[in-house]
Amino acid sequence: MRVRNWLFGHFRDVARSFGFEEFDAPVLESEELYVRKAGEEITTQLYNFEDKGARRVALRPELTPSFARLIMQQGKSLALPAKWFAVGQCWRYERMTRGRRREHYQWNMDIVGVEGVEAEAELLAAITDFFTRLGITSADVGIKVSSRKVLQAVLRRFDVPDDSFAPVCVVVDKIEKLPREKVVEELAALGVKEAAIDGILDAMAMRSIDQLESLLGADADAVSDLKLLFSHAEAYGYRDWLVFDASVVRGLSYYTGVVFEGFDRAGELRAICGGGRYDKLLGALGGEDRPMVGFGFGDAVIMELVKDKGLLPESLKSGNVDDLVYPMNAALRPAAMGIAARLRAAGRSVDLVIEDGKKPKWAFKHAERCGASRVVLIGEKEWEQGVVRVKDLATREETDVKPEDLC
Amino acid sequence: MRVRNWLFGHFRDVARSFGFEEFDAPVLESEELYVRKAGEEITTQLYNFEDKGARRVALRPELTPSFARLIMQQGKSLALPAKWFAVGQCWRYERMTRGRRREHYQWNMDIVGVEGVEAEAELLAAITDFFTRLGITSADVGIKVSSRKVLQAVLRRFDVPDDSFAPVCVVVDKIEKLPREKVVEELAALGVKEAAIDGILDAMAMRSIDQLESLLGADADAVSDLKLLFSHAEAYGYRDWLVFDASVVRGLSYYTGVVFEGFDRAGELRAICGGGRYDKLLGALGGEDRPMVGFGFGDAVIMELVKDKGLLPESLKSGNVDDLVYPMNAALRPAAMGIAARLRAAGRSVDLVIEDGKKPKWAFKHAERCGASRVVLIGEKEWEQGVVRVKDLATREETDVKPEDLC
Repeated sequence: MRVRNWLFGHFRDVARSFGFEEFDAPVLESEELYVRKAGEEITTQLYNFEDKGARRVALRPELTPSFARLIMQQGKSLALPAKWFAVGQCWRYERMTRGRRREHYQWNMDIVGVEGVEAEAELLAAITDFFTRLGITSADVGIKVSSRKVLQAVLRRFDVPDDSFAPVCVVVDKIEKLPREKVVEELAALGVKEAAIDGILDAMAMRSIDQLESLLGADADAVSDLKLLFSHAEAYGYRDWLVFDASVVRGLSYYTGVVFEGFDRAGELRAICGGGRYDKLLGALGGEDRPMVGFGFGDAVIMELVKDKGLLPESLKSGNVDDLVYPMNAALRPAAMGIAARLRAAGRSVDLVIEDGKKPKWAFKHAERCGASRVVLIGEKEWEQGVVRVKDLATREETDVKPEDLC
Repeated sequence: MRVRNWLFGHFRDVARSFGFEEFDAPVLESEELYVRKAGEEITTQLYNFEDKGARRVALRPELTPSFARLIMQQGKSLALPAKWFAVGQCWRYERMTRGRRREHYQWNMDIVGVEGVEAEAELLAAITDFFTRLGITSADVGIKVSSRKVLQAVLRRFDVPDDSFAPVCVVVDKIEKLPREKVVEELAALGVKEAAIDGILDAMAMRSIDQLESLLGADADAVSDLKLLFSHAEAYGYRDWLVFDASVVRGLSYYTGVVFEGFDRAGELRAICGGGRYDKLLGALGGEDRPMVGFGFGDAVIMELVKDKGLLPESLKSGNVDDLVYPMNAALRPAAMGIAARLRAAGRSVDLVIEDGKKPKWAFKHAERCGASRVVLIGEKEWEQGVVRVKDLATREETDVKPEDLC
């Protein structure tokens, strides 16, 4: 929990430094909130079941659909742009592997109501700020950026119908994980013709915006969006983190525009985080569409990276107590209780020895374990004289102090 | 979430000021962890189901069994006494009423390894500290204290077998909610004879430790435990919060000794919190018994009280942003992004206006909504001169400031 609180503390501090408000949503949602037909991994691994009232429910696999539901509930009363974040537990029903557990947490930041890539630029600024706080640099981690509009333009060029778009994205997302022939086979199964498949795979191999511009023309939305986003990144000062990579489409079916994915440059880990624009999700859930952008940032892969790089602060190894209060015998217990109450009221974190028969040696060892900086000994002689003995554990100095001068 | 974070922040701060370490446990546990035969409400309202692998699981109704499981897992390596706390979500499957939802949170603090009532005294100190932090006094709230050893002594006196103890406690817990004849009926159904029922009801009506002492004798454990606990309360300085009330036994079957229950003195709300000693739970779960004491403190009833008494801080009503950064036109956006990045790096919380065509009037209204103390305007003329205009929203003063002097 010390480690988790450290990580989540950074999630929350970054989101707040961007002026985002925290939200939460039920852990258990109606299953229908997650029913999408694009064949995504996230829906095939849904942790769903029937409750005692015969309702189909699911432990949420991600936060975005709940977020979208909350935004719809707000209706016209929602002040735009809305900038919300959450750190929430999510579940999947599958085998566990490195960096993938059945139960994990995701940090989400989402912006509603902004059409321009300025929203994407803010979110990427938050992500790079987060890495920087942890001591991770752009030499360790990069963020691949592209736009689904690239794939959309290619599909239109080859007359692939618009309703194939989402399932094609789900297949293309696996390009780096599957052999080429498997990807070709899956695309063909979706009814995509051979020439179109070749066109898709060629386009997805592009690694520069110049190449993209020569393929789609300077007027294409994908090109102007990405150019503007990269120039914004320059203005914020995080351009060196970004990499254009046309093969990035992300595995969620609802993305419609810019998509991005954090990765370790050493290439040893799964994606660290991912996000993008999803302007059509509210419509798909029965509401009115609004421009929306967001990202999900899991707690598992980043912790692999933090541990590999030795970035966990030393201070997390022991407790965080200020004072250990130790009565030398049972008769001095009431005195010790009063002293502990006084120190706590002054804002100090105090562990009080409440067990019988503990020796001073044990008390000092225990003080170390809980990270205490002082031991306050209540001795019979001292207490009769109206003082307690304070041992500073850093300097090893002992002084007799009146209770009222303790803090 | 602002309200929840405020409440949970106090839960955590109090626990840490007592030197407790935070823990968490799975939300979803094996159903068998909660199978107890005493007829408790908590087990009859279990949110249980079968997972896809045909396992019987339950959304946890309380944290204590998970805590006990974790303590067992630690085995001999656990340093004693262990002082742990958690703030965790819990579920019940029942109709919702005031102060009782299907999904709620519970703050738990538990001590393992201390046989004496000094452990109970520490926990009660934490609870009263928590109330005090919120601005709740001992005139608003009291804590009823008793010991299950009272009931145990009475049952033994009437030769009621020991294995009736837990189910009798569950019935006696309902004394204040059910009519007397219903309690009599339920006790009779457990095989308790009429004389014993009268003895139980008479004993449960006691409201002073003197009465208790004349019934059980000064040597009875219940009497000496309670006397010592009340004298410790004096030493800590929270004696005025405590009320001896023999009818308090709590509804959980696993308590074995001192039990307590926070209540509003106006008598309008359900119990605010409750806890006690449960020295036999580890044995019941297949482990080796250890002395354990703990409490559960839900988030629902306390919030009713906080709202009734108007104790929510005003500051929770708006956001917590320091600066709103506002570029006067789209061309100044890169400048604004750079300024926002600079302020955030300096630790300030910054909302950046990223939408096109927002008027200054909107920006100032928005600044108020998010609680900003300054608006940083990026104007064309000022920016050319190397400055930005800063408006202090408290004093209404405007000054031109160089970016490097902003923080």
